[in-house]
Amino acid sequence: MISSTANPKVKELVQLKKKKKERDQQKAYLVEGLRMAREVPKADILKIYTTEKFYRSNRQFFEKKQEPILLSDTVFQYVSDTKTPQGILLVVRQRAYTEEDLMGQKNPCFLILENVQDPGNVGTILRSAEGAGISGILLSKDCADLYNPKTIRSTMGSIFRIPFCYTDDLKASILKLKNSNITLYSADLDGEASYDEATYQRACGFLIGNEGNGLTKEISDLADEKIYIPMKGEVESLNASIAATILMFEVARQRRREE
Amino acid sequence: MISSTANPKVKELVQLKKKKKERDQQKAYLVEGLRMAREVPKADILKIYTTEKFYRSNRQFFEKKQEPILLSDTVFQYVSDTKTPQGILLVVRQRAYTEEDLMGQKNPCFLILENVQDPGNVGTILRSAEGAGISGILLSKDCADLYNPKTIRSTMGSIFRIPFCYTDDLKASILKLKNSNITLYSADLDGEASYDEATYQRACGFLIGNEGNGLTKEISDLADEKIYIPMKGEVESLNASIAATILMFEVARQRRREE
Repeated sequence: MISSTANPKVKELVQLKKKKKERDQQKAYLVEGLRMAREVPKADILKIYTTEKFYRSNRQFFEKKQEPILLSDTVFQYVSDTKTPQGILLVVRQRAYTEEDLMGQKNPCFLILENVQDPGNVGTILRSAEGAGISGILLSKDCADLYNPKTIRSTMGSIFRIPFCYTDDLKASILKLKNSNITLYSADLDGEASYDEATYQRACGFLIGNEGNGLTKEISDLADEKIYIPMKGEVESLNASIAATILMFEVARQRRREE
Repeated sequence: MISSTANPKVKELVQLKKKKKERDQQKAYLVEGLRMAREVPKADILKIYTTEKFYRSNRQFFEKKQEPILLSDTVFQYVSDTKTPQGILLVVRQRAYTEEDLMGQKNPCFLILENVQDPGNVGTILRSAEGAGISGILLSKDCADLYNPKTIRSTMGSIFRIPFCYTDDLKASILKLKNSNITLYSADLDGEASYDEATYQRACGFLIGNEGNGLTKEISDLADEKIYIPMKGEVESLNASIAATILMFEVARQRRREE
């Protein structure tokens, strides 16, 4: 059992928890808690850390998995991202989807995020996207890191099920989508049409921008159509995850009618 | 200028920031930052606290308002809820809407929240509700406190514009709505109809439950119809603010078609 926070393994866990750079280099991330741990595909598990107490009372979880590494309660608390850790922490391999993986689907509907900064927003968007039946998510490199522990939690497991891909060159990736006959809509406060006036039966995608500033003009101008969400009162804009949800569930609603 | 954190006024501010009980007793709450402070109706401002620096560079804000109380930078940091405070903090009077205020509207659409716990969710729901044109929000006493500084921020000012009311007896309040011919829908994972199969042109309301457990059976059973949001993938449920948003914007969409 590891009982010192000076142990190199412990130091590595803290790095993985705190630093995007470390997660990127190792192509790994942390998943904490039994509920989320259960959802990790077995082949993606690199290491299992647990406490003696958790190990003893959750034998079933460890069946047919690699040997776990035991941490003392104090050390577990030290590496955990939560105040009252359950005692189970996995090091998980990052899924490397490519843009081609996203595109190889029939009649797809994509979400394209530009510079969405809040980890909770990105996580909630993933969860809603899976619920709405979105085919995949393309993120600009400057979006919040999906492998951040806070984001992982807010996806409620959708991160293991919905394909996503960070792109270094958002413009180039968007042009690729356009060349594949995917109609793109930008969510734009100055859009020309209300989002519910368009029909989304065919392959499509939605461009969603930063929380404070929306989409950059350069990216918004790539869309085939700029759409807006009609708003009452004095509300200037909606939370990014809220706006994305309204659009995605309108697609789902329209496509159900056609089934 | 107040330069000691032992000053009774400073202690009072900290109590208002941290304690719901104190806010309830004083029927007051705190609003921080210039953007939000600008939206507070003048008649609701009880006290104005500022730093010398903010006061000097934002004279316009203070015009035709009561004399501000100056705090040293250190004391301001101490009472502030943010890491890098701007230097403006208002003590604001709580609006005491009654259920009757909520109901005195033509063809209303209400949101009824039962035990929604996350302050960010409640704030986001208010913001979305204003955008969707919701008439008012009824909250069970055990919902998160709307006057919590985190919630205030996430409403982006909607708290000053949309009527809301906490009720000690949610069941009795719901029965009052029903007696006023308001058709109630409960958002229920086991609902009978998809939310987009119902029509919402007439007076209506939506019951939204706790993040983890949904609505209690007692409250859900009061609804005229139980509805669900169809979901793809393995998503079990949606975030409470996301689910509420999908329903509210479906109402807005349908009602636009009728205009």
